[in-house]
Amino acid sequence: MRLRLTPRDTTYFDLFTTLAGHVVTGVGLLAELLGADKAGRKEIAARFVQVEHEADAVAHEITMRLNQTFVTPFDRDDIYGLANALDDIIDAMEEACDLIVLYKVEELPRRVPEVVQVLQRCAELTHDAMPRLRTMEELREYWTEIHLLEHQADRLHRKLLAHLFEETTDAITLIKLKEIVDVLEDACDGFERVATLVETIALKES
Amino acid sequence: MRLRLTPRDTTYFDLFTTLAGHVVTGVGLLAELLGADKAGRKEIAARFVQVEHEADAVAHEITMRLNQTFVTPFDRDDIYGLANALDDIIDAMEEACDLIVLYKVEELPRRVPEVVQVLQRCAELTHDAMPRLRTMEELREYWTEIHLLEHQADRLHRKLLAHLFEETTDAITLIKLKEIVDVLEDACDGFERVATLVETIALKES
Amino acid sequence: MRLRLTPRDTTYFDLFTTLAGHVVTGVGLLAELLGADKAGRKEIAARFVQVEHEADAVAHEITMRLNQTFVTPFDRDDIYGLANALDDIIDAMEEACDLIVLYKVEELPRRVPEVVQVLQRCAELTHDAMPRLRTMEELREYWTEIHLLEHQADRLHRKLLAHLFEETTDAITLIKLKEIVDVLEDACDGFERVATLVETIALKES
Repeated sequence: MRLRLTPRDTTYFDLFTTLAGHVVTGVGLLAELLGADKAGRKEIAARFVQVEHEADAVAHEITMRLNQTFVTPFDRDDIYGLANALDDIIDAMEEACDLIVLYKVEELPRRVPEVVQVLQRCAELTHDAMPRLRTMEELREYWTEIHLLEHQADRLHRKLLAHLFEETTDAITLIKLKEIVDVLEDACDGFERVATLVETIALKES
Repeated sequence: MRLRLTPRDTTYFDLFTTLAGHVVTGVGLLAELLGADKAGRKEIAARFVQVEHEADAVAHEITMRLNQTFVTPFDRDDIYGLANALDDIIDAMEEACDLIVLYKVEELPRRVPEVVQVLQRCAELTHDAMPRLRTMEELREYWTEIHLLEHQADRLHRKLLAHLFEETTDAITLIKLKEIVDVLEDACDGFERVATLVETIALKES
Repeated sequence: MRLRLTPRDTTYFDLFTTLAGHVVTGVGLLAELLGADKAGRKEIAARFVQVEHEADAVAHEITMRLNQTFVTPFDRDDIYGLANALDDIIDAMEEACDLIVLYKVEELPRRVPEVVQVLQRCAELTHDAMPRLRTMEELREYWTEIHLLEHQADRLHRKLLAHLFEETTDAITLIKLKEIVDVLEDACDGFERVATLVETIALKES
C-alpha cells in the first residue's frame, strides 16, 4: 500500500534478529537460574546484566539509525515500538533474575518452570520471525501461536497466583514471590506486544 | 484546520460506540458481582471474560481497518489510542472481577461500591459521547465531567487506602484488597485518558 | 535535517523550562518533607498538590498549543512526550509525598535521603538543559550525566529493597515502605525518559 522509494535498508532486519537473539539468550539464563544453587544464581544474574547491556546497545543503535534516516523499511513508529518492546522483555526477565537473587528466594512457586517454558517457546518463535519481516511471508503462524501461548501463560499465571495465596502463610514471602511471578507475566505480555506490532506492520505492507 | 479529502468513514464512530457499549456492560457486571454470593461471582466473572473477548474483537477491527485505509476521520494515532484506552478500561475491570473470585475475597473494603458508581457514571458519559465525535459537538461537558469524576475517584481511592491500612490487620488480606482497589483506580484513570484523547481530537478539528 | 518553515516558536522552550522548574520545586518539597514532623509533612504534601496543579496547567498549555499549530520547533510527538514525561515525574513525587502522609510512616528506610539527593541532582540538570533545546548545544553532557545518575539510583534502589526485606519484620510496614520506595524509583526512571527524548530530539536536529 505504501510507495517504496529506495531499496530497503536491510540492517533493521539484522538488528531486530540480533535483539531477538538476546531475548533467546536471556530466557536461557533465566531457565538455568531456576535450577541453580545460591552461588550459581548470583553468577547467572550477573551474566544476564551483560546480556541486558548488549541488548540496550542494539536497541539504541536502532533508535539512532532511525533518527538519522529518512527512508525506513516500514513505519518509524513501528520500528521504534518493536525495538522497545523487545528490550522491555529483556528488562523484565533481568528483573526476575535479579529479584530471585535479591530476595534470597529459597523455593519458587512450583509452576514457575512451566511459565519459563512458555517464555522460551515465545522467544524462539519471535527470533525465527524477525528475519521474515524482510519478505513479510509466513508471519501469520508466528503471531497466531504467540497469542495462543500468551493466553496459556495468562491462565497459568492466574492458577499460580491462586496457589500462591493458598499455600503461602508468611506474608513477606508472599510479597516476594508475587512480585517475581508478576514480572514473569510482564515478560509474557511483552511477547504479545511484539506479535501485535508485527501483525500491524504486515497488514500495512499488504 | 485539516483538509477533508473524502466523506468521513462513519464506521469508526459506530465501532467506538460499540466498544464503549461493552465498557457499560462490563461495569454493570462489576456492580452485579459486588452484591453476589460466591457461586454468583464466579458466573459473573466468566460472563465478563466473554465481554472482554467481544471488546477485543471490536478493538482489533478498528486497528485492522486503520491499517488498511489512507483516509481516516481523524488522526490515525488518536483513533488507535482511543481504541486501546477503551480496551484497557475493560481489561482493568475484568481483572478486578477475576481477582475478587481468585482471591476468594469475603468482604470488600466498604467504599468500593462508591468507586464502582463513579465508574458507572464515567462509562455512561463516555458511551454517550462517542457518537458525538462525528459532529464534534457538545463534547466539552463530557470531558469536563470526566475530569471532575476522576478527581473524585482519586480522593476516594486515597481515603479507601487509608482505611484499608487502618482496619486490616492481616497482611495477606491487605495485599489482596489493595491489588483489587488499585486495579479499580486504573480503570478510573483509563476514563480520564479517553477524555483527554477526545479533547485532543476535538481541538485538532476545531 | 528537517526544513524550517518559519522562525521557531520560542514559547515551547519557555514552557518546558517552567515545567522543569516545577520539577525542581517539587523535589525540594520532597526533601523538606523527609525531615519534617507529622504536621509539617501534611502541610508540605498539601503544598505539593498545588505544584502539581500548576505543572498540569503548563503541560496542558503545551498540549493545547501543539494541537493548534502546524509548525513546531521539533517533532510534535517529541514535544508531547517531553511534556508528559516531565509531568509524570511530578506525579510520582507527589504520590510519594502523599503516601508518606497517608500511611503515617514513622521511619523511612535509611537510604531514602540518598535517593532524593539523586532526584534533586537530576531535576537541576534537567532544568538547566531545557533552555539549551533552543540552540541544541551542550546537551550531550546533560543526558550522559542523567544516564549515570539513573544507573546509580537503580543500584541504590536494589540495595534499599534488599535492606528493607532484611530489616522489616512487619509485613504491613513492608508493603507501605516498598510502595514508597518503588514510586521514588519511578520518578528516577522518569528523568531518564526525559533525557532519552532530548537525545532523540538533538539527533533529529543534527
